[in-house]
Amino acid sequence: MIKVAINGYGTIGKRVADAAAAQKDMEIIGVSKTRPTAEALVAVKKGYPVYIADISKKAAFEKAGIPVAGSIEEMVQKADVIVDGTPGGVGESNKALYEKYGKKAIWQGGEDHDLAGFSFNAHANYKDAIGRQFVRVVSCNTTGLCRVIKALDDKIGVAKVKAVMVRRGADPHVVKKGPIDAVVLDPPTIPSHHGPDVNTVLPHIDIVTMAMIVPTTQMHMHAIQMELKRESSRDEVLGVMKAHSRIGLVQATTGIKSTAELKEYVMDLGRPRSDLWENGVFEASVAVIGKDLYFFQAIHQEADVVIENVDAIRAMAGDVKDPEVSIKMTNESLGFVAI
Amino acid sequence: MIKVAINGYGTIGKRVADAAAAQKDMEIIGVSKTRPTAEALVAVKKGYPVYIADISKKAAFEKAGIPVAGSIEEMVQKADVIVDGTPGGVGESNKALYEKYGKKAIWQGGEDHDLAGFSFNAHANYKDAIGRQFVRVVSCNTTGLCRVIKALDDKIGVAKVKAVMVRRGADPHVVKKGPIDAVVLDPPTIPSHHGPDVNTVLPHIDIVTMAMIVPTTQMHMHAIQMELKRESSRDEVLGVMKAHSRIGLVQATTGIKSTAELKEYVMDLGRPRSDLWENGVFEASVAVIGKDLYFFQAIHQEADVVIENVDAIRAMAGDVKDPEVSIKMTNESLGFVAI
Amino acid sequence: MIKVAINGYGTIGKRVADAAAAQKDMEIIGVSKTRPTAEALVAVKKGYPVYIADISKKAAFEKAGIPVAGSIEEMVQKADVIVDGTPGGVGESNKALYEKYGKKAIWQGGEDHDLAGFSFNAHANYKDAIGRQFVRVVSCNTTGLCRVIKALDDKIGVAKVKAVMVRRGADPHVVKKGPIDAVVLDPPTIPSHHGPDVNTVLPHIDIVTMAMIVPTTQMHMHAIQMELKRESSRDEVLGVMKAHSRIGLVQATTGIKSTAELKEYVMDLGRPRSDLWENGVFEASVAVIGKDLYFFQAIHQEADVVIENVDAIRAMAGDVKDPEVSIKMTNESLGFVAI
Amino acid sequence: MIKVAINGYGTIGKRVADAAAAQKDMEIIGVSKTRPTAEALVAVKKGYPVYIADISKKAAFEKAGIPVAGSIEEMVQKADVIVDGTPGGVGESNKALYEKYGKKAIWQGGEDHDLAGFSFNAHANYKDAIGRQFVRVVSCNTTGLCRVIKALDDKIGVAKVKAVMVRRGADPHVVKKGPIDAVVLDPPTIPSHHGPDVNTVLPHIDIVTMAMIVPTTQMHMHAIQMELKRESSRDEVLGVMKAHSRIGLVQATTGIKSTAELKEYVMDLGRPRSDLWENGVFEASVAVIGKDLYFFQAIHQEADVVIENVDAIRAMAGDVKDPEVSIKMTNESLGFVAI
Repeated sequence: MIKVAINGYGTIGKRVADAAAAQKDMEIIGVSKTRPTAEALVAVKKGYPVYIADISKKAAFEKAGIPVAGSIEEMVQKADVIVDGTPGGVGESNKALYEKYGKKAIWQGGEDHDLAGFSFNAHANYKDAIGRQFVRVVSCNTTGLCRVIKALDDKIGVAKVKAVMVRRGADPHVVKKGPIDAVVLDPPTIPSHHGPDVNTVLPHIDIVTMAMIVPTTQMHMHAIQMELKRESSRDEVLGVMKAHSRIGLVQATTGIKSTAELKEYVMDLGRPRSDLWENGVFEASVAVIGKDLYFFQAIHQEADVVIENVDAIRAMAGDVKDPEVSIKMTNESLGFVAI
Repeated sequence: MIKVAINGYGTIGKRVADAAAAQKDMEIIGVSKTRPTAEALVAVKKGYPVYIADISKKAAFEKAGIPVAGSIEEMVQKADVIVDGTPGGVGESNKALYEKYGKKAIWQGGEDHDLAGFSFNAHANYKDAIGRQFVRVVSCNTTGLCRVIKALDDKIGVAKVKAVMVRRGADPHVVKKGPIDAVVLDPPTIPSHHGPDVNTVLPHIDIVTMAMIVPTTQMHMHAIQMELKRESSRDEVLGVMKAHSRIGLVQATTGIKSTAELKEYVMDLGRPRSDLWENGVFEASVAVIGKDLYFFQAIHQEADVVIENVDAIRAMAGDVKDPEVSIKMTNESLGFVAI
Repeated sequence: MIKVAINGYGTIGKRVADAAAAQKDMEIIGVSKTRPTAEALVAVKKGYPVYIADISKKAAFEKAGIPVAGSIEEMVQKADVIVDGTPGGVGESNKALYEKYGKKAIWQGGEDHDLAGFSFNAHANYKDAIGRQFVRVVSCNTTGLCRVIKALDDKIGVAKVKAVMVRRGADPHVVKKGPIDAVVLDPPTIPSHHGPDVNTVLPHIDIVTMAMIVPTTQMHMHAIQMELKRESSRDEVLGVMKAHSRIGLVQATTGIKSTAELKEYVMDLGRPRSDLWENGVFEASVAVIGKDLYFFQAIHQEADVVIENVDAIRAMAGDVKDPEVSIKMTNESLGFVAI
Repeated sequence: MIKVAINGYGTIGKRVADAAAAQKDMEIIGVSKTRPTAEALVAVKKGYPVYIADISKKAAFEKAGIPVAGSIEEMVQKADVIVDGTPGGVGESNKALYEKYGKKAIWQGGEDHDLAGFSFNAHANYKDAIGRQFVRVVSCNTTGLCRVIKALDDKIGVAKVKAVMVRRGADPHVVKKGPIDAVVLDPPTIPSHHGPDVNTVLPHIDIVTMAMIVPTTQMHMHAIQMELKRESSRDEVLGVMKAHSRIGLVQATTGIKSTAELKEYVMDLGRPRSDLWENGVFEASVAVIGKDLYFFQAIHQEADVVIENVDAIRAMAGDVKDPEVSIKMTNESLGFVAI
């Protein structure tokens, strides 16, 4: 059993905890919180030992009904792999602690590539992560791009990618962030950081990205244009997508044509937290004109990296060498049936 | 086993189907759809027989992977109780069909009180529903008001209620309705229909309501002011609320102070569809000044009536005479642990 | 003086009325309304004679303080040019009336190209509109695309255009339309109608467009990618844009990086109705990589076609033959100083 | 001529600048900015001398096309009255500067009452402000409450006020603040600060307020309930409102029933920045049941305090002793015709 600790039990951390706990080769030995919030209560109800950053707050936690198992440093010592789910930029400061005890750690896409020295996507470079001490799972948008680019590049060849990312303004439970009624260029310059970030995983891909933020909480939407290396067809592209274990095709017959309707469908399917772990490619949108491919895909910012973290844990632990075996274990443990 | 049919498998219908299916004394014998949408696919995955309004569309359903069990008329004949979840105003036209076969039927709050001649809330008038052919479960807002008013009136006495309902603009998956950036008076006159609607359940309550719509999809918020019949205290009021099996107190220590954070918490607890079946009274807001009581409560428009429908089915079927027994059966079947 | 009538005094109609009234060679002889709303009151305050669709409603208008000048048919007879600002699809039914009296008429982009047989953009084809009876001013998005594509094609050469349109969900005063919290593919297929619509004005341009709707009321945002016919530079492209009388460059020093901040700036400049008549190209976004050009532009859906309507009126009336003369007259009459 | 300086040329400051500049007894001798943004450019275009907080940034301003007239300290010395429009909490730190030069200063409602020792509303206590050195103009919500409560209390008598404030999340140009899809209790406790704030102007009023934030940028909405001291009638209340020079009645015939439609109407009337300076009471909503009065009013958060600042300047300067004279001068200078 791989002993997994979640340092930062928030939006991503709590999902990775549940997904890792569902693996037959992993167990959650602890999760960390800085304040005794609703999420900390949830950790208790789920049976995860709660460790805290500032042990002087122990009384406050316990008064709120949250037993404290110890300090974060104690949690780190008990773990084989730590998944760092702290906010972007904070994770960096935890590196020394992981090094002190010689522990393996995974950071999220909010940290720089150089912090871990390796950026991960299960379908792209699982084997290169085997046995590594430090890994960074790329962000939700980069994960979504890597999956589909890698698959199409392998099977057809990708000459150039131009992607426009229409990003959600804040996660559903975040009430202080906006915008309320605006489209915000983020950044107002071109390219956005997403293209270079794809290159940390797929260095040879020619990609230019543009990004903006809109007033929604439910999923990012990517408008993707690719120049393929040869003429292809809609059917061939759909075939590549269907064959991918983490690309879901939103079928035209469902009538779904928005992020909100897609979220409702995933909710109705009974997925935990209504999570869409796979890329949600809108089947009706896939168009091929000569060598040019166009399509829309929805990326659930809270979910798609969760299963990548699970595979990263397994690769770093080193017992499973075959990416397809790990991916299958992860998907099946979640009862992940394609949309 | 009470044979339950869901006529209109939409936002409310699909939730009532799952809740009724979870009861040991009920089974779902069919659900109906008018079009082969994503929701119809979900019904198939859940194993509910799908009946359709226009049997000439059978081929279209089956092409979309949805086996058709028959017409709605056939479904009605097989049922003991039909839960009519069709859109407001449509349900009325189904009455003749239910009468033709002498079936019991439940309408939702979008229909007029006179259609059923009886408006239902489990804690208020379960016994009066026993054996009835037709019942109307009042709307989400009215249900939320009735629960808390009835409980306080029984224990302390309510002289006057003034409530401001800040309503969500549309359900999460509805993408055509707004507003996007406005507060809309709905209606622009005072009182809104909610006060009189409370009186269909609790005729003697003096209540004036004001209502508006805001650009959110997540829960209604009620700002409630009550004049009690005698001086009371915050502790007494909290005690009444805590003792109620369908009022949840959102504790101050959770840090939750918005509909979105409350929804996240319910999601994290693993509730199906992240549903808040109970009134979400914000503990920190409960204030008593002399005889005046003030508080905020969140009402999940998709969820609170679901469990009332289950109790209404049981009352109409007639085997369970005690409201507390039915309420307990319903709550426990859903693993409903108070927030 | 060209006698102008506005058939449909709504979002576009009321703006065209004010803009035409500001021209020294035009006068507004009447505007039409179907109901005695706030906009009708505004027409009265501005001194525009109000004509009504259904003369039997005359009493209702007059009771609301709106004198009625006559029927729409009477208005049409008095006009030289009718600007039809009725909702998309309705304008078509008015054609017979305009033909009956041999009047010139302008439709908006919501109508099909075939209705008028000619689609207009001042910089692209003013001369072809001279003396025409029927003209269609293309939609706000198409207008914004035509301006910038035509200018770059004339000066540098445009090989291919790929544009993603992130559209506002509803105009600011429209409270029933959404979405509230979703990105809606509209259409979910590729290409959207915008590319073919550009071709009604610029037939030889190779363009593929993708479109979605987001929950904002303030301006559309275009993410544009163009393959130029030769290598160019950022400076050359900026030079072409600066030289265009209806393209505004949102300078990086202003700190403006969203539609909302741009709207505020235009408001602060004192523009009537805070209208942005020109394309709002974000200077910081303009990037040239080899032959590939990338940039963002904001398009104010209520405003950019207004000045095109004014030029169309002038072209159709026939006295001003030179497009640059008309464009200058229009711009200067509005005190239109580039952002 | 009263020499007015605007320290903090932002949302409120820029509006007060324009409104004061429109008075025949006032002139703007300078405005201040901390950064060379779009608003600073607007100040230049309007001809207001720009002073800056950090004189070392002079070069950056001038590079952006903004001539710098000097430091804020220099501006203060030239002024008779400084209107402090800096963000809430910042204004306090400026007091020493105003005292150093013995200047009169006005703070906004984001500062505490104690900072100025006097909280102002033109209709309530203009005379008490005559000749004062320091005055605080209460916030937009408090201003809107004071106007209507004071008028009704004077004419009919107000026994108790219960108001629910549904507040906009952020001003239209603010793109970082939310919420996007939530109703946020702000504060989650009762009463909110608005009631006590009304008491800084009207000490004897019995008032309890509840407040929440919703995802809109356009105006606050107040749901107001008042117990009057005697039985009254809808006509009497409407009469009091109509007679007030800063309460506007949104007439039922306009069909306006939302903040967005009201904003559009004010925009169409040609008001600068589409500003609603008066309370927007929805005529259709005014209901009187015995001694109980109910109504909705819209409060434009960017605008209603602007004209109060102008009157405060005049009162502090001391030449105009009669509030009605000042209010009339202010209103008329802006061409303020009641909605």
